[in-house]
Amino acid sequence: MEQEKCSMETTGKVITCKAAVTWTIDAPMSIEDVEVDPPKAGEVRIKIISSGICGSDNHVLEGDFKVPLPVILGHEGAGIVESIGEGVSSVKPGDKVLTVFLPQCRKCDSCLHAKGNCCLKEDVRHPVGLMLDGTSRFTCRGRKLHNAFGTSTFTEYTVMHEISVVKLDEAAPLEKVCLLACGFTTGYGSAINKARVTPGSTCVVFGLGGVGSSVVLGCKAAGAARIIGIDINEEKLARAKALGVTDCLNPRNFKKPIQQVVVEMTGFGADFSFEAIGTIDTMVAALESCNSSYGVCVIIGVAPEKSQLAFNPMQLLSGRTLKGCFLGDFKTRDHVPLLVDDYMKNKINLDPLITHRLPFLKVNEGFDLLRSGKSVRCVLSF
Amino acid sequence: MEQEKCSMETTGKVITCKAAVTWTIDAPMSIEDVEVDPPKAGEVRIKIISSGICGSDNHVLEGDFKVPLPVILGHEGAGIVESIGEGVSSVKPGDKVLTVFLPQCRKCDSCLHAKGNCCLKEDVRHPVGLMLDGTSRFTCRGRKLHNAFGTSTFTEYTVMHEISVVKLDEAAPLEKVCLLACGFTTGYGSAINKARVTPGSTCVVFGLGGVGSSVVLGCKAAGAARIIGIDINEEKLARAKALGVTDCLNPRNFKKPIQQVVVEMTGFGADFSFEAIGTIDTMVAALESCNSSYGVCVIIGVAPEKSQLAFNPMQLLSGRTLKGCFLGDFKTRDHVPLLVDDYMKNKINLDPLITHRLPFLKVNEGFDLLRSGKSVRCVLSF
Ligand SMILES: NC(=O)c1ccc[n+]([C@@H]2O[C@H](COP(=O)([O-])OP(=O)(O)OC[C@H]3O[C@@H](n4cnc5c(N)ncnc54)[C@H](O)[C@@H]3O)[C@@H](O)[C@H]2O)c1
Ligand SMILES: NC(=O)c1ccc[n+]([C@@H]2O[C@H](COP(=O)([O-])OP(=O)(O)OC[C@H]3O[C@@H](n4cnc5c(N)ncnc54)[C@H](O)[C@@H]3O)[C@@H](O)[C@H]2O)c1
Ligand SMILES: [Zn+2]
Ligand SMILES: [Zn+2]
Ligand SMILES: [Zn+2]
Ligand SMILES: [Zn+2]
Repeated sequence: MEQEKCSMETTGKVITCKAAVTWTIDAPMSIEDVEVDPPKAGEVRIKIISSGICGSDNHVLEGDFKVPLPVILGHEGAGIVESIGEGVSSVKPGDKVLTVFLPQCRKCDSCLHAKGNCCLKEDVRHPVGLMLDGTSRFTCRGRKLHNAFGTSTFTEYTVMHEISVVKLDEAAPLEKVCLLACGFTTGYGSAINKARVTPGSTCVVFGLGGVGSSVVLGCKAAGAARIIGIDINEEKLARAKALGVTDCLNPRNFKKPIQQVVVEMTGFGADFSFEAIGTIDTMVAALESCNSSYGVCVIIGVAPEKSQLAFNPMQLLSGRTLKGCFLGDFKTRDHVPLLVDDYMKNKINLDPLITHRLPFLKVNEGFDLLRSGKSVRCVLSF
Repeated sequence: MEQEKCSMETTGKVITCKAAVTWTIDAPMSIEDVEVDPPKAGEVRIKIISSGICGSDNHVLEGDFKVPLPVILGHEGAGIVESIGEGVSSVKPGDKVLTVFLPQCRKCDSCLHAKGNCCLKEDVRHPVGLMLDGTSRFTCRGRKLHNAFGTSTFTEYTVMHEISVVKLDEAAPLEKVCLLACGFTTGYGSAINKARVTPGSTCVVFGLGGVGSSVVLGCKAAGAARIIGIDINEEKLARAKALGVTDCLNPRNFKKPIQQVVVEMTGFGADFSFEAIGTIDTMVAALESCNSSYGVCVIIGVAPEKSQLAFNPMQLLSGRTLKGCFLGDFKTRDHVPLLVDDYMKNKINLDPLITHRLPFLKVNEGFDLLRSGKSVRCVLSF
């Protein structure tokens, strides 16, 4: 039990380890020695074993999503609990866990509502990058670092609130299920929970990265008859066919707006449309791609800070529904373990999403793969 | 049976009668003698008995909603079938009917879909003002007039497509149920069908005219525990209390944005919000008034032509749903008769909505009442 030994040796002590620090955006992260404080009350210190690289991390690095700097990014992580703070009861040292950016406190208005998943304990839309007590657990070269979305997985050790930690089945393979901490769960749940894709329906998915590919898997699981995949990257289109996409569209191959192409090829627009890219233009295109009288459009992508989604409200009056969600509308601690069960029962296949693996220290190369469109998901090993 | 006699005398002939003609916008309508052609195949000629005055007619007159001119406006009508064209089978001369702006052809993609009500036979969003064969049945001073939304009720006789004509119970009082042709049905159905207001919920209704007041009735019927009514007209607020509004807000009495007031007074925002005014600002306010994680906002108002509803898509990512509908999402010919049944069984009370009555020839005064905010609904008698 290597992790337990490790736990006994380090409990209550500051751990010095490697982390990828983002001092400034638009520059590679820098691998540094950081000090990670022990967890305080309600907190959990986690040894990260695997972490995916998500488009949202890239938005931060490209300046489209502003978080307080310096920061340790990464949120699609899986690891092992090293030690716990006072009062923590849902996990113990040695437990396998996922690091999710959306807490489930089980006490706030959103958690108590049957349909809410956006826990009010932390505002993920305007992250402050600090623990709930207003302090940080990370120090580097004498400077305090912020966390990212209450997670921070590009580090050998992180400290999170118990309410954002999802306990895993002991047998779960961390190097795969880390995708359940964000990308897969987000895409799959957007189709299953938020859109409630119906059997026999026609779906259109904008963006076939890790999130969009998971939307495809969700649409397929829900019994969609036709799944139109849209991406500007031909490799992504080819890969998506293996996941269940029935028709591939590259907007660069058309002179007319892609929403018009979708409406024409479906007759009257798709039953369900999904935006998993994060630009205003593709959000509008997704809205206009769904049927004007009964279409449902789900926004998943994170658009650049302060941008405005703008459209003629007549687009809605004919009957359309426009929604959005974080993490596929799952209540994180309640529902993600059920997805893990499904994974363990081979009902979910994450392999096609994991196109690359890299040692954690090559995290910047992982981002290059994402930006160049070569990877769907690149998983870092620690 | 006066109407039958009338029918036999006029069938197949052009009828000359009084109508209110809109030659140009931003000017009073002009009462003219018009010639109304007999109905062609699939068409119905109707003697109008009563017509409400709806905010949408006013949008046309104020230039916010463009329709081809010259035109005979009015769409919230009730009348008696005078004669029918070839192939018409669902109504016969003497039948009481409502004139609805949304057809139900029962054959198009939208009609055949369980959730669609925006029949594709006519595009109400971009009205051409002509019958489906591209011609007009109205002539005035030698000039062809357009119809409004396939209805035109500010005339003693009109010609409509059978697919937009709702057959009424013989005993239905036309001077009341005319509201079921638009305002009541729109508001009530937006709450019942589109939002699916839940028992015990908190609702907020922007605009307490004929449509918004009907939203209030729908919320109440659905068992809402709290209904917040918002209007800039104090008289509307006072009247709405009698309909079921529990809290009244006049945005002019607050320095902060009204959505902030709503969020503060409800704790976390309303479960359901409705926009029944037709401005972009109030649409955004309605969206932001509903709960960020599980709120549902229904847009009903018709915004000025070419305006854009714009908001940060983060407003949706936390979980909100934004929708819109015409005519309360009812399939018109199938469902409006059920509302009439409810009215006949005293389950619906239209009296509080009808604040004024005028003879048809005073239609311009009716619009003055609407614009000054004095009327909820003014019903014209022919
Ligand atoms: N709502 C949530 O909870 C949540 C969670 C995770 C990620 N996200 C967001 O989802 C989006 C996708 O994330 P991801 O990890 O899959 O990113 P990704 O970079 O792996 O995938 C994006 C895909 O979009 C394609 N693309 C880019 N521009 C395009 C265009 N104009 N037209 C068509 N395709 C285009 C790219 O080629 C790529 O395949 C991001 O905006 C991310 O921030 C949201
Ligand atoms: N979707 C549909 O099928 C449908 C059907 C009918 C009407 N409509 C639209 O619904 C809207 C309302 O119609 P109506 O007949 O009730 O009109 P109305 O004029 O009777 O009611 C509008 C109400 O809004 C109030 N108001 C105006 N500006 C306001 C503001 N800034 N803040 C708060 N209150 C404000 C007015 O005082 C008035 O009471 C119109 O836009 C109309 O075109 C849509
Ligand atoms: Zn993510
Ligand atoms: Zn919570
Ligand atoms: Zn109307
Ligand atoms: Zn139809």
